[in-house]
Amino acid sequence: MDPKEVEIPGNSDPNQPGGRISHLALDIGGSLIKMVYFSTNYDVDDEVGRSGKKSLGVSSGNRDHPVLKGRLHFVKFQTSKINDCLEFIKTKQLHLGGYQHLEAPPIDKIIIKATGGGAHKYADLFKEKLGISLDKEDEMNCLVGGVNFLLKAVHQEAFTYMDGQKEFVQIDHNDLYPYLLVNIGSGVSMLKVDGDGKFERVSGTNVGGGTFWGLGRLLTNCKSFDELLELSHRGNNRVIDMLVGDIYGGMDYSKVGLSSTAIASSFGKAISDNKELEDYRPEDLARSLLRMISNNIGQISYLNALRFGLKRIFFGGFFIQGHTYAMDTISVAVHFWSKGEAKAMFSRHEGFLGALGAFRSYDKHGPDDSLVHQSMRPFPFTSFLAGDKICSPPNGELNETESVDCSVYAS
Amino acid sequence: MDPKEVEIPGNSDPNQPGGRISHLALDIGGSLIKMVYFSTNYDVDDEVGRSGKKSLGVSSGNRDHPVLKGRLHFVKFQTSKINDCLEFIKTKQLHLGGYQHLEAPPIDKIIIKATGGGAHKYADLFKEKLGISLDKEDEMNCLVGGVNFLLKAVHQEAFTYMDGQKEFVQIDHNDLYPYLLVNIGSGVSMLKVDGDGKFERVSGTNVGGGTFWGLGRLLTNCKSFDELLELSHRGNNRVIDMLVGDIYGGMDYSKVGLSSTAIASSFGKAISDNKELEDYRPEDLARSLLRMISNNIGQISYLNALRFGLKRIFFGGFFIQGHTYAMDTISVAVHFWSKGEAKAMFSRHEGFLGALGAFRSYDKHGPDDSLVHQSMRPFPFTSFLAGDKICSPPNGELNETESVDCSVYAS
Repeated sequence: MDPKEVEIPGNSDPNQPGGRISHLALDIGGSLIKMVYFSTNYDVDDEVGRSGKKSLGVSSGNRDHPVLKGRLHFVKFQTSKINDCLEFIKTKQLHLGGYQHLEAPPIDKIIIKATGGGAHKYADLFKEKLGISLDKEDEMNCLVGGVNFLLKAVHQEAFTYMDGQKEFVQIDHNDLYPYLLVNIGSGVSMLKVDGDGKFERVSGTNVGGGTFWGLGRLLTNCKSFDELLELSHRGNNRVIDMLVGDIYGGMDYSKVGLSSTAIASSFGKAISDNKELEDYRPEDLARSLLRMISNNIGQISYLNALRFGLKRIFFGGFFIQGHTYAMDTISVAVHFWSKGEAKAMFSRHEGFLGALGAFRSYDKHGPDDSLVHQSMRPFPFTSFLAGDKICSPPNGELNETESVDCSVYAS
Repeated sequence: MDPKEVEIPGNSDPNQPGGRISHLALDIGGSLIKMVYFSTNYDVDDEVGRSGKKSLGVSSGNRDHPVLKGRLHFVKFQTSKINDCLEFIKTKQLHLGGYQHLEAPPIDKIIIKATGGGAHKYADLFKEKLGISLDKEDEMNCLVGGVNFLLKAVHQEAFTYMDGQKEFVQIDHNDLYPYLLVNIGSGVSMLKVDGDGKFERVSGTNVGGGTFWGLGRLLTNCKSFDELLELSHRGNNRVIDMLVGDIYGGMDYSKVGLSSTAIASSFGKAISDNKELEDYRPEDLARSLLRMISNNIGQISYLNALRFGLKRIFFGGFFIQGHTYAMDTISVAVHFWSKGEAKAMFSRHEGFLGALGAFRSYDKHGPDDSLVHQSMRPFPFTSFLAGDKICSPPNGELNETESVDCSVYAS
């Protein structure tokens, strides 16, 4: 644990023993709602049961700053089940974060940071159901803010993944920029990042996580994104994909460097068989789909990295989600197309980049900000430190709550 | 009609009245077999009934060369139904082309030009069933040969397609190279073409025509590629695709230049509905799939054109096949990603590039060639002229025969 410095303004009282301070930010995408919130004490029912330990309130740190110990929570919901999300917020009173023991502003003055298209689409719903306003933060800004923050603040955040091997990469902060950030949500955005807050959306593709999930649901009847990802682990894409060897009678097409095992045409075997959809195993369908989409994203990403002379490509977003097979396929695609020149890199908290960026944006408003903004900042939260215990975001069922030990300095 | 010059070697007798001269080349891909053959007289049962006229044998042309008038026939089969193809060849005796009235070589000396992966895979089958050998021509060589030939020899071969408008492009032969050739077969190959026989396969994608057909079959139960293409004409992709406006509550994401009607995630709506596959109309599924794949190919093609500084991109292969919606989507994608800098171009005979290239390769062997090669060249066929009557390849059922009036000079 090596806590980092943050400032705490005067309108909260972090020294109040047992005071629960929560803070909430949302990234409402087309498929998933990603939520990040911080609490200084554990919910005994939830977290203690899971972690077997309890870490309460505030302890003093170095540099004469009190340290807020607590947990950063990562939660996701399907956007189609937004009412579950609203209910979760209401039950946990997350929208009142930091005010349970303080003088809270009137409910209609409370503003929650939110990003993603849904911050626009569902603003009225949040007002109607919870009485609160969403303060819309630009999606790309949040994304870049989230990843820059993670790469700089968190030890062993970035890694490469090849042949089942995860390798952490120490990033020199002075040599971080420029890089390509590929965020794989429902769709895919590709951003050239030149510095803090300096970026441009240079490309993207509509073949993304929503395509995987949407097509996957139609093909396999899977009920959730995670179930589909899980299924693909056990599948064999060669049953459905047409390989170079299938066309060339088992041979390579060596003249142009295509091995017999390269995929010539995703789902290409489904044309020549007399099989119907129900004759294929769902796991094989899921795997072909995953390979098709991963390959494609890897290729388009590399072509864009090449275009701007970027040697590092960071992949984030829910599609990857610590999912080794997706990472492996993307790594292979980037390696293949770049002839080893470029490397796919991943971030341990890739699924929550936008939400983290929105979370951090509470802290970005200067003295000119409105009173409403000020009153919504029980404390700012410029950085947190993730301990070794933190692994990738959850692979299990949706709506699972994952949390992370962290400490912040309070001034 | 403006016939062009070719040479005819001495081992055929084009002056023999009523002599049927056929000549056959094959492009055996993963999904389709494309066949091209030439005949100097019409099959009364087939062609006269179709064209209402008959043009037999040889008439004299200018420059003291006799002119061979005849037809160039384009036929396709599903590769999975290769026995239909073998039967077709046998019944029409195409493999004996040019020898019915001449002294033919022994059957086991007959060699047919073939390209595509299937030329390797099915070589034994051709030997076994027809007794003939396939002379394997490199797939990419044939492709490039076919398109270079068409672009130079055929009037109004190249065109652009935007907003339902086909516009023919006059290509200056001195300004043809370099260009990007994108061949959309089962998979997609992207070739940088620098001249006659000078090219490099620079990229490709496994999301191609086989993906469209394979996935489309699984999703819609369509029985043929053409049926699926036809279906997509009548569909509405917005039923299944997640648009930017769907995420942003009907708004544009104008900051990064994404309009509300842009597709954010292909098939993305299939995740949030409670609908199952059977609740979607097959035509909507087909259209979403077509847009996804066309868009993707257009984008990757443009990125490769950009990489090598190529302003012209020619799209060929069976996926396009004069299919206006695919051409339109690819054109829009290239226009969008290049901000109007690059243009998608199409060729009227795009589906048979490889087969045409193989056909032309009969004529490419110099005096050092073996006797077997020589004996298989009843006449060379360096160019043909397509009359105004020739439109795009057929859009109807597979196995339909289409033919083209053409004339060649015989020396």
